[in-house]
Amino acid sequence: MAQSFASTIRAGIAAVPLTEFDIIERFFATPGSHRDDVCLGIGDDAAILAVPDGHDLITAVDMLVRGQHFPDDMAAADIGYRAMAVNLSDMAAMGAEPAWATLALSLPEPDESWLAGFAAGLLGLAAEHGVALVGGDTVKGPLAACVQISGFVPSGTALRRAGARPGDRLFVTGAPGEAAAGLALWQRGLRVPQGPAARLLRRFDRPQPRVAQGLDLRGLASACIDVSDGLAADLGRLARASGVGAIIDLDALPVSEELAEMADPMQARRYVLGGGDDYELCFAVPAHALPEFERRARNWPCAVSEIGEICEPLGLYARERGDTEPLDEGGFDHFR
Amino acid sequence: MAQSFASTIRAGIAAVPLTEFDIIERFFATPGSHRDDVCLGIGDDAAILAVPDGHDLITAVDMLVRGQHFPDDMAAADIGYRAMAVNLSDMAAMGAEPAWATLALSLPEPDESWLAGFAAGLLGLAAEHGVALVGGDTVKGPLAACVQISGFVPSGTALRRAGARPGDRLFVTGAPGEAAAGLALWQRGLRVPQGPAARLLRRFDRPQPRVAQGLDLRGLASACIDVSDGLAADLGRLARASGVGAIIDLDALPVSEELAEMADPMQARRYVLGGGDDYELCFAVPAHALPEFERRARNWPCAVSEIGEICEPLGLYARERGDTEPLDEGGFDHFR
Repeated sequence: MAQSFASTIRAGIAAVPLTEFDIIERFFATPGSHRDDVCLGIGDDAAILAVPDGHDLITAVDMLVRGQHFPDDMAAADIGYRAMAVNLSDMAAMGAEPAWATLALSLPEPDESWLAGFAAGLLGLAAEHGVALVGGDTVKGPLAACVQISGFVPSGTALRRAGARPGDRLFVTGAPGEAAAGLALWQRGLRVPQGPAARLLRRFDRPQPRVAQGLDLRGLASACIDVSDGLAADLGRLARASGVGAIIDLDALPVSEELAEMADPMQARRYVLGGGDDYELCFAVPAHALPEFERRARNWPCAVSEIGEICEPLGLYARERGDTEPLDEGGFDHFR
Repeated sequence: MAQSFASTIRAGIAAVPLTEFDIIERFFATPGSHRDDVCLGIGDDAAILAVPDGHDLITAVDMLVRGQHFPDDMAAADIGYRAMAVNLSDMAAMGAEPAWATLALSLPEPDESWLAGFAAGLLGLAAEHGVALVGGDTVKGPLAACVQISGFVPSGTALRRAGARPGDRLFVTGAPGEAAAGLALWQRGLRVPQGPAARLLRRFDRPQPRVAQGLDLRGLASACIDVSDGLAADLGRLARASGVGAIIDLDALPVSEELAEMADPMQARRYVLGGGDDYELCFAVPAHALPEFERRARNWPCAVSEIGEICEPLGLYARERGDTEPLDEGGFDHFR
């Protein structure tokens, strides 16, 4: 899986010692996880994979670029972890069981210690979730990592953004806003090994994709999205895709101790509603599915909060002490 | 399919007018080709796809970076075409029927005419081969395009690099070396609309992935690879993967009229053996399959040349007037 543009390169980077083949062999050939459904992995023109009969294939892609999706000084292992985590989070949002990933990595030079760290972060998280790395392409260029992930669901059972109906209850996992608060600490130069600030920093560095929770939501949630660009923005997307509106109960928003300690109540609320990089799941559950949902969620290792409900009028609304007002999505867009 | 790193971006590119959502909607939502097996395409956290029962999934990824994989001044439509072509070529090399692609596009700014051209090149070639674009991610960053393609084969029938056996005959489609000769003309500033030079330039700009030929080779070829980094280099890979050697008959190498016109015989041979960017197929056919292979290849619209044979001693060899000597792969590697 290589491509040429032959003589320019040959002339240009003659001094770089590691070959592309070396990089794949040395750093990525340990494919994260062994899977019997990988008939042929890294090393040919493409991978050969066996999708189980009666299942749909679920596929997502995310590209991370230095300075845009992670700070210039982020550790290689954290970048590798993040490249896998954001894709696992897409699988979680679909209720899919993740299976295979490919990596296209552009890097300015083949720095061995950087590569070892990146591979450890990426493959470590892949192995935790049983994901095999089945293909790769390494190229010389500005630092960017593009991971595509594939997984599956029994046919017809994938969660979508569309499907929420008025009256459905709205939930969110974990504590959205913590990652944005952690990023703010990072930007102020804070690097501490323990305590509340360290936990917030960690939430930015090492988001936990909610894969098991997504699997549990199959057959129960009417719509689901992962919160990557802020709770309000992503809930707005879910509502638009479903052709409905959404009301957030401001008093019901989860504010962690760590966040409360670092920010005043209004600022904390802004983090919860507008922060990005959380990779929590936001989803709607119809009334008839609530008992089974509550039963399953009791076993989750993460928090889950009921934060509002789906309504008929299109749009996003905030409710507090009986008043309901339109809410700005305050989200985030890469080109705004 | 977006990811954040919230506040840095919010501050940094406030002046850029097109939103990420606009870009996907406006330029890529026409998904190349309609397919009934796409249950859910662009617009959710992931795509939902139906792999036919009894088939293997074939997946490849390639990233193209400006200045590394295409010249700085290449037209947007040609870059889009190339991003799809190199991936289709991977499907061809596996004998796979291409079906779905995802695109992750990093670009410095959302230039509308560039995006329209890029999308036209990419989606036009996708539609020619019945490929649907099912997912996308657009990010701000240095110009780079990462396409992952998926297709399928009846279970167990994919072509691989491994499988060639001593005595198998070696073939190559088309006229390898022409793309490298075209690139050399480009680098000398030549831009002509017609004649032999224009045809060579076109071979660099618009490589023809041999998808139909790959499908025809299923059940016949014992091993197959696409020639992206030079015939010698890629044949060397095929031989290594198969645990055999390969002999090239130098006099049998195809040299097109166009190439003969622009280069002396030795230089032309260097182009044929060492040039990159051709995206032809090189493959081995066992003796028993030759009659059926010849019958099928008669209907191909492209040339096909028998260029040598597989041998027992490991390595790559050139044969000419009865002499057989080791041959330098003279290939190309992104990190050498």
